[in-house]
Amino acid sequence: MAKPNVLIIGAGGVAQVVAHKVAQWADEFGDIHMANRTQSKADAIVEGIRAKGHAKGRTITTHALDAMDSAAVADLIRKTEAKIVINVGSAFINMTVLQGCIDAGAAYIDTAIHEDPAKICETPPWYGNYEWKRREAVEAAGITAVLGAGFDPGVVNAYARLAEDEYFDRIESIDIVDINAGSHGRYFATNFDPEINFREFTGTVYSWQGGEWRENSMFEVGREWDLPVVGKRTAYLSGHDEVHSLSARYPQADVRFWMGFGEHYINVFTVLKNLGLLSEQPVTTAEGQEVVPLKVVKAVLPDPASLAPDYTGKTCIGDLVKGTRDGQPGEVFIYNVADHKEAYEEVGSQGISYTAGVPPVAAAILIARGPWDVKRMANVEDLPARPFLELLGEMGLPTRVIDAEGDRPI
Amino acid sequence: MAKPNVLIIGAGGVAQVVAHKVAQWADEFGDIHMANRTQSKADAIVEGIRAKGHAKGRTITTHALDAMDSAAVADLIRKTEAKIVINVGSAFINMTVLQGCIDAGAAYIDTAIHEDPAKICETPPWYGNYEWKRREAVEAAGITAVLGAGFDPGVVNAYARLAEDEYFDRIESIDIVDINAGSHGRYFATNFDPEINFREFTGTVYSWQGGEWRENSMFEVGREWDLPVVGKRTAYLSGHDEVHSLSARYPQADVRFWMGFGEHYINVFTVLKNLGLLSEQPVTTAEGQEVVPLKVVKAVLPDPASLAPDYTGKTCIGDLVKGTRDGQPGEVFIYNVADHKEAYEEVGSQGISYTAGVPPVAAAILIARGPWDVKRMANVEDLPARPFLELLGEMGLPTRVIDAEGDRPI
Repeated sequence: MAKPNVLIIGAGGVAQVVAHKVAQWADEFGDIHMANRTQSKADAIVEGIRAKGHAKGRTITTHALDAMDSAAVADLIRKTEAKIVINVGSAFINMTVLQGCIDAGAAYIDTAIHEDPAKICETPPWYGNYEWKRREAVEAAGITAVLGAGFDPGVVNAYARLAEDEYFDRIESIDIVDINAGSHGRYFATNFDPEINFREFTGTVYSWQGGEWRENSMFEVGREWDLPVVGKRTAYLSGHDEVHSLSARYPQADVRFWMGFGEHYINVFTVLKNLGLLSEQPVTTAEGQEVVPLKVVKAVLPDPASLAPDYTGKTCIGDLVKGTRDGQPGEVFIYNVADHKEAYEEVGSQGISYTAGVPPVAAAILIARGPWDVKRMANVEDLPARPFLELLGEMGLPTRVIDAEGDRPI
Repeated sequence: MAKPNVLIIGAGGVAQVVAHKVAQWADEFGDIHMANRTQSKADAIVEGIRAKGHAKGRTITTHALDAMDSAAVADLIRKTEAKIVINVGSAFINMTVLQGCIDAGAAYIDTAIHEDPAKICETPPWYGNYEWKRREAVEAAGITAVLGAGFDPGVVNAYARLAEDEYFDRIESIDIVDINAGSHGRYFATNFDPEINFREFTGTVYSWQGGEWRENSMFEVGREWDLPVVGKRTAYLSGHDEVHSLSARYPQADVRFWMGFGEHYINVFTVLKNLGLLSEQPVTTAEGQEVVPLKVVKAVLPDPASLAPDYTGKTCIGDLVKGTRDGQPGEVFIYNVADHKEAYEEVGSQGISYTAGVPPVAAAILIARGPWDVKRMANVEDLPARPFLELLGEMGLPTRVIDAEGDRPI
């Protein structure tokens, strides 16, 4: 069977990693295409891949695309004969890209939940507001749609599934902990698009505990963790995509997401939020200009991609899963440690983009090879975990586990 | 002689106090006029004066005026037959309003130094960049122009002059200390137009010490003061208008300005400044919109005028003057204490606007009466201090002095 053509949508920091990894693993794919609103950004990434010698003699063809227009997406899928679309553009385009895949018959992969530019933190479960409403349409079209296949959500969902498959009969709690112990040397920066990054924290923090949704505000609940490599760090109960899908698969378990923040980050965030500068609602200046404050904050902050050259240190992201096996309680911490500098040396991106960008390529390979080509919509925990995690190990994101028997590779 | 018609330009918090005080002291003036870019704001102030019963049966006529257009200013002066113009609009309009006064033959009073919207913290002495270049034109036109006749600059300049006239043969140092120990109950707010307020702190801090200009950055030099009523407070060496004129009259003296700030204010300011959100240079959003960050910060902050109803506590502003008399060293602290709530009850404004708005009306009365109608350009320290301070005492801003003989009214 012919290798499937692949279409990457987006040209930001994560898309850059995706493109590098697709190129490195080009033997798994047919033609490689990359589309972005601003085509020149995609061209720059392709040039970077060539410069690193990652293209392996293959061509990556770039296209200009308004991904908010599902007909344009479908047209480009047909024109490129893409069988797999990796959507790593803004979170605002998920629904139109998915519709394009449904209409043109291509597999769909994304790494973050759909967001409506005008809304922040909708009612849980978030996937129920947009993605899951298309389940029947996806199945009717006979395509595969893998949702949230980045690191978190994505790999951490697979960690939960691995715990289900290999460690416990019954899962009691899943605590996902995301610590970035790296340093970018700037006064302040977000690791992703600030518009998306801050939206994670400005609304209600939802967690699934005791069989129901609990509501907190950001930075209300903190806990100190002691993790491999990064050591003791404070992380805060945060709202995050994967809580919304894992709570559906494991309704009996408590599902919480903890994000690590330093005091400086919290201070800057708190000032901006309290002043109203993180608002997505327009304000009017004394001169009568209508401006969305959050877009101005984004404009003054460093471009996340620009942080990569000076980024040092490591990330540790993992799942502390508690459960029972044969009636005996136990716990396991399944995790990955990534290094910002190594990521930059390999693909020219910082570690946060690297950990988010490698997994959707692994997902694409597993669709191309078959095991994940399930012809329906699935979150990552609904798919076999071990082939995904083993492939990620080959691709640069090894998984380790700590349990009663010690700290070791899976 | 007929009482002079007066024209107030501006309709912000200070202009509101000016209008109330002019109305209360209407016997000193002929017709009263008020002009602003947005005429409805002036109408609202006039309505407030009527509601308080301060109009004393007099009419205040409002006008729409683009004060950046000196010909329009001159036309309005001629039309209203104003003999005194009190300019309490934005600091960007000083030069055009002054030109209008020169052209139409009216006395000019302002309360803050001219600013170019495109520049921050120009070279010292600041008055030398704009105002003092018009000295000959003012003298040739035979008009009086009193610069910086608010509280600081303004009353504090008169305090220095009082020390010169009544306490010392030779002045060694003038430390102006401005403490606002009031509380507005908001997360964060500036007491004046944020655009002007922040501009005071984002550039170089100039002080006059040892016969030369010293440069520091904001919040670099702090000192604890122990002042009447407000107690122990930390104030920081700051750039301020009056340092630039006082250093010309007292070149042998050290002249410093100290502004009190709490830790919270400094934190918010530091975050905004370091992020680039206090910049007056436009940035471009991802959507291609050109925006000046400082104008967006201004748009999200509370309108300073809106603070008044809940503002409680007191301000203490004064001059610590050291010098010698008959060869004997001595020091004197000349000061005023104002109360936010009393100011609101009297004129519907908070104390900061009150202290800034009463002095230019006193200046106008002294021009109308004669003692300050000097037919040339003058800073406040160039004019007799005692009649000004005594009149201010009658108008609600009493002056006290602390020296070796104790704490008492002047």
